[in-house]
Amino acid sequence: MDHRESDEVVESSVGGVAPRDMENNASSFFDDEEMGIRDPLLRWQTGNTTSQLAVVGANVCPIESLDYEVVENDIYKEDWRSRKKEQIFQYVLLKWTFALLIGLATGLVGFFNNLAVENIAGFKWLLTSNLMLKHRYHEAFAVFAGCNASLAAAASALCAYLAPAAAGSGIPEVKAYLNGIDAHPILAPSTLFVKIFGSICGVSAGFVLGKEGPMVHTGACIASLLGQGGSRKYHLTWTWLRYFKNDRDRRDLITCGAAAGVAAAFRAPLGGVLFAYEEAASWWRSALLWRTFFTTAVVAVVLRTFVYFCRSGNCGLFGKGGLIMFDLSSNISAYGTPDLIAVVLLGVIGGVLGSLYNFLIDKTLRKYSIINERGVPFKILHAVAISLLTSCCSYGLPWLVKCTPCPPDILDQCPTIGRSGNYKNFLCPPNHYNDLASLFLNTNDDAIRNLFSGGTNNEFHISTLIIFFAGVYCLGIVTYGIAIPSGLFIPVILAGASYGRLVGTLLGPISKLDEGLFALLGAASFLGGTMRMTVSVCVILLELTNDLMILPFVMLVLLISKTVADCFNKGVYDQMVKLKGFPFMEAHAEPYMRNLKAGDVVSGPLITLAGVEKVGNIVHALKWTRHNGFPVVNEPPFSDARELCGLALKSHLLVLLKGKGFTKERVSTGAADVLRRFDPFDFAKAGSGKGVKLEELDIDDAEMEMYVDLHPIVNRSPYTVKETMSLAKAAVLFRELGLRHLCVVPKSPGGSPVAGILTRHDFMPEHILGRFPHLKNH
Amino acid sequence: MDHRESDEVVESSVGGVAPRDMENNASSFFDDEEMGIRDPLLRWQTGNTTSQLAVVGANVCPIESLDYEVVENDIYKEDWRSRKKEQIFQYVLLKWTFALLIGLATGLVGFFNNLAVENIAGFKWLLTSNLMLKHRYHEAFAVFAGCNASLAAAASALCAYLAPAAAGSGIPEVKAYLNGIDAHPILAPSTLFVKIFGSICGVSAGFVLGKEGPMVHTGACIASLLGQGGSRKYHLTWTWLRYFKNDRDRRDLITCGAAAGVAAAFRAPLGGVLFAYEEAASWWRSALLWRTFFTTAVVAVVLRTFVYFCRSGNCGLFGKGGLIMFDLSSNISAYGTPDLIAVVLLGVIGGVLGSLYNFLIDKTLRKYSIINERGVPFKILHAVAISLLTSCCSYGLPWLVKCTPCPPDILDQCPTIGRSGNYKNFLCPPNHYNDLASLFLNTNDDAIRNLFSGGTNNEFHISTLIIFFAGVYCLGIVTYGIAIPSGLFIPVILAGASYGRLVGTLLGPISKLDEGLFALLGAASFLGGTMRMTVSVCVILLELTNDLMILPFVMLVLLISKTVADCFNKGVYDQMVKLKGFPFMEAHAEPYMRNLKAGDVVSGPLITLAGVEKVGNIVHALKWTRHNGFPVVNEPPFSDARELCGLALKSHLLVLLKGKGFTKERVSTGAADVLRRFDPFDFAKAGSGKGVKLEELDIDDAEMEMYVDLHPIVNRSPYTVKETMSLAKAAVLFRELGLRHLCVVPKSPGGSPVAGILTRHDFMPEHILGRFPHLKNH
Repeated sequence: MDHRESDEVVESSVGGVAPRDMENNASSFFDDEEMGIRDPLLRWQTGNTTSQLAVVGANVCPIESLDYEVVENDIYKEDWRSRKKEQIFQYVLLKWTFALLIGLATGLVGFFNNLAVENIAGFKWLLTSNLMLKHRYHEAFAVFAGCNASLAAAASALCAYLAPAAAGSGIPEVKAYLNGIDAHPILAPSTLFVKIFGSICGVSAGFVLGKEGPMVHTGACIASLLGQGGSRKYHLTWTWLRYFKNDRDRRDLITCGAAAGVAAAFRAPLGGVLFAYEEAASWWRSALLWRTFFTTAVVAVVLRTFVYFCRSGNCGLFGKGGLIMFDLSSNISAYGTPDLIAVVLLGVIGGVLGSLYNFLIDKTLRKYSIINERGVPFKILHAVAISLLTSCCSYGLPWLVKCTPCPPDILDQCPTIGRSGNYKNFLCPPNHYNDLASLFLNTNDDAIRNLFSGGTNNEFHISTLIIFFAGVYCLGIVTYGIAIPSGLFIPVILAGASYGRLVGTLLGPISKLDEGLFALLGAASFLGGTMRMTVSVCVILLELTNDLMILPFVMLVLLISKTVADCFNKGVYDQMVKLKGFPFMEAHAEPYMRNLKAGDVVSGPLITLAGVEKVGNIVHALKWTRHNGFPVVNEPPFSDARELCGLALKSHLLVLLKGKGFTKERVSTGAADVLRRFDPFDFAKAGSGKGVKLEELDIDDAEMEMYVDLHPIVNRSPYTVKETMSLAKAAVLFRELGLRHLCVVPKSPGGSPVAGILTRHDFMPEHILGRFPHLKNH
Repeated sequence: MDHRESDEVVESSVGGVAPRDMENNASSFFDDEEMGIRDPLLRWQTGNTTSQLAVVGANVCPIESLDYEVVENDIYKEDWRSRKKEQIFQYVLLKWTFALLIGLATGLVGFFNNLAVENIAGFKWLLTSNLMLKHRYHEAFAVFAGCNASLAAAASALCAYLAPAAAGSGIPEVKAYLNGIDAHPILAPSTLFVKIFGSICGVSAGFVLGKEGPMVHTGACIASLLGQGGSRKYHLTWTWLRYFKNDRDRRDLITCGAAAGVAAAFRAPLGGVLFAYEEAASWWRSALLWRTFFTTAVVAVVLRTFVYFCRSGNCGLFGKGGLIMFDLSSNISAYGTPDLIAVVLLGVIGGVLGSLYNFLIDKTLRKYSIINERGVPFKILHAVAISLLTSCCSYGLPWLVKCTPCPPDILDQCPTIGRSGNYKNFLCPPNHYNDLASLFLNTNDDAIRNLFSGGTNNEFHISTLIIFFAGVYCLGIVTYGIAIPSGLFIPVILAGASYGRLVGTLLGPISKLDEGLFALLGAASFLGGTMRMTVSVCVILLELTNDLMILPFVMLVLLISKTVADCFNKGVYDQMVKLKGFPFMEAHAEPYMRNLKAGDVVSGPLITLAGVEKVGNIVHALKWTRHNGFPVVNEPPFSDARELCGLALKSHLLVLLKGKGFTKERVSTGAADVLRRFDPFDFAKAGSGKGVKLEELDIDDAEMEMYVDLHPIVNRSPYTVKETMSLAKAAVLFRELGLRHLCVVPKSPGGSPVAGILTRHDFMPEHILGRFPHLKNH
């Protein structure tokens, strides 16, 4: 089998060596060869006994590489020729309309999410605080934990029953999709539904998780739904939408959706654009910059309008807050050497803690897969158990710390009884507050706001910050793997801000910088250490805090933490992509690929079709192989010599066979015949999982002996490389052009006109190193 | 001649149809077929009579396409095999060191520029104001105009005599370089020198021009100088630097330099990164994001340090100002429908005015080329004349307006006598100010600051704003073409801010927004209309003003103005690239290329070399063609059949010939022989204009009859396409992989093994449409 795009289960196996590019060639002390952090949990196993849900949210399902290559066959030519100028205008208009719609919908969902979460959390708080004021602490805890547990159960039930793909962050899935891995349920409507409501329940249940990752996934799902719009199923096949029946446009839409998701979650339109560019997308065009920018601008306007509407109290318990979430107004007039050392220190700590976090999350997910394999009820129980643990921490730990008297010269209210606020009373005498309760017994957003707050030096005790950091760090790790839509940003920011503030408090005597600023820098360093994003995190933090003066500090801290963390392992999303077994195509070729030739990794027997082929042979080829493309070789009398005619795609073959029109004789019927019987649109790429299937064909034995002319559907000019080209160079071609099949032709004429086909799987390091283990040392 | 990379003069001719991609397919009313806005000024003419300086700063000089393709020959393999792990580490370290150095140097230059300009302008102002206080107005004008004229003369003399390439903005040149057009003087040390000092003189001369474009060019020059570091000339050829002898690394450095330039000019580190991505670079990798980010962070730190140092008055007349230049603190709590309509209106006006601006600049440059062709003294006179015109406007126009009484409830000083300040006294009675003088008789930075200033509604009369707008708009257009380093950002921001403020003043009664905010939005709309950048302009404005609340407005205004302006013509930098005749490779293939085949645009006779070739034939080929690559075809006995062995580069052939080692017999000497005589580094890409030249070869007649084995230097696996592939698809391959030569092979085996070679010039719309005029209508 020379090209093995699986239609059943991810087939990625053997070896635990991670891809390294030349710049990140550092060795990893976490990485033991036996077990390999990046060893995918899901492998091709005989009999397929592994549960498809071993990793919650793993998407083991038809995986298909999408391609950017223009299939230049007769159908395409006809299609292109028939396009008129007005249609091009409509096409452009449609693109912008879709961008607008995605922005509107994602903005709406983002606002709805906020509204629901704040109202539920507010209601929960009202119930609990009433009981606490009456000194009925046990009942208060019962109510608190009960609310949380039932919300958790609801979220995990939704997730486990309806759409397991909705569990987890969703960013790895979106990243994989944009890399060309089309696993159907990733962006299905059920996933969208669960992602929205599961995320609301999950966040209101008080878990240490965020809504950011799920929002990105939600945005992508919305975009995908819109992109699938022109479906034959719903008789929506008007001329406009047919131009969207290609991978590039769909992927563009989903990129816009991901950007809109970030914009809605953080209220950071620029951050959204940069996130889409830096983290989500694998192929980027400048036109996309422009379109994502528009989408996120729409999101910003929608959110702004709603926030304005809610200011007058129209939205129940919805909190106050403009487009800027954590308004931090630092005033860095001067800084000295100790401050710079502190910043460097924060960066190093962030790098070490971040890579450890990634390592632990990976370990935990592997352990969790044992629970998840046992079935749906166990998943729900698991979520409830973690919820109870979180409730115990939130409600129990504040009892450990002493009350602190309110600072005398404070502008804010102190202590506060209400739902939010910086100084929580929690069982303290008047004019005293419980600093751990201000962090733990709050929504995550409020806790971050409290940590970031400036001008409140020494508000939190050192011991409080240590307890909170330890709690949040561990809870974040154990929470991520449960069957609930859960983002990583908020836990990471919480943990980072708490150790940042801790460092700030410790350095208080010698540093002129504010503790709130230290908290922000801590958050930045931890984000850099786990996610390894730079520019987008920087912009997101700027947009979150509305403070541009801190930019150089944030940049410095990100640089250091990313560099330190890169010495140990990969970013958390890359790790997750590997863990889920997605055949992710890296941007760079591995150095050892230079020692291989393209001909080395293709291996026979190669299945080729003739220009005019017997129907039976085609059906046989489709039935017994899982190939998605077949080289078509012409022989005399159809050509002068035996030569490569081009490449026929499985999906096109199926459409052609379904349309019948076979001939008894082995003659070329030509393009005109096919174009008479088919509309070019029939051959357009169907939505994921929606194309013609082999089982739908109804071909009798007589037809099996007849012939069909493949020429009209053959891509006449596929990109080719010679078998002597180095694999690295072939990989560059494959990756940069976003190909799905790459024909390898022999060095010398004569013999077979095609030596093999390279697909995405042939470039996977696991595959290559499995076959050439001696390259590992290179 | 099938591949025509000129070594003499830009050869791009015929037809004025601009490249259009599908999305910008709007017709242009400015565009008349006869003259064609984008018709390059410099064409290939018989006898080369056109002055090379017809357009000031035009760089008509060896133009070379750089390529990203890995040349896989024996030399390269040997080179790669010999690299050790420590060397890779050194290589990575060196990259970062260079990024650091570029950041430091650019930051330093940026600060020095600011310091010098402010001190010269301050000194000029001191002289003038003293005379004015004594009511000696004519003498004051003489001093003012004299200072300006002499500074202008100095700048233009520097520019015209030393480095004509330093005239103008420099951004088009950097853009062209990063697109693969290596015109030597663009980044030469003399250009750097003139760019730094010419820009200082030009800005202090009070012209309506900015230092931003020149700073970008300066940053690129600094990066280029560093990248050329390991030069044999200076015996700096240690192992480390040899890995930088390739185009990709050089281009990466120059991208960092461009980003650093923007960061230094606007004190906008993030804006710099995004500018480099959005406007400057043609190929981008994620590793580059990271490195440019680091460079601009260094620039920010350097600038911050110096600004802090200068605050205590150590820098003479250097003004006060932190890292944020125009601190605008708007307070948009609410906005209504009239405000939104006003914003949309601003966007439309900006789009129309911006495209008109581009059109007029193009026209003016064409007219100016007549003056420039006359010689250096005329260029200097021209600059002095424009300087006098500017002085007359700045000094004369404020006499036209009446004095305004100071507003009673003002916090700022009013009127101000000093160099800067919002309310200039200028001949007014006490407690009155001259509003036009506050704009015109100020440095450009101060004028922008005054226009942006919030809480000063009705400071400027409507008539004042109209006069100032008209003056700045026209002066900006006539100033750009003179022989002085001149940026476009500041004139565009000035004009935009003045009409923005005008709209704000007009709408004052019905709008709740501040006039300063309107000025900012006007500037954004005009920037969008001329430069057509989106995200980077947005971030630059945010960083300039430190006001994130305005983000949605700025985004909206940019979207509208860019969309409107795109209906009329291309962005100003794209236009300039065309005007200068650079063979710029667009990111997208033109739609009509789908109607052509790759074989259609190559045309014979093709010059091929044999694997073991007679020296005379090679010298002849090098002498009589301007090709930079030759297909090497092997024939029996060196191969089984006549087949394409690969591609030999001119530069490699020259090195090989210079090393002699010819044989009398036609035998293959093999790679070992060449590797014994040469170091792989000998074949590394030399700095621009530094490689072995044909004239340096000293080959006698006997040697001409001898043979040389080309196999070791032949790129054995060049990318190839079949001649039947559509040109559009070939263009995608060529562009995405950053190729310099693309071999076209025949469809059927037999016959010649290579049908031709495609180079950058073959994909130029002018070239194609010249040969296939009927495609124009497609």
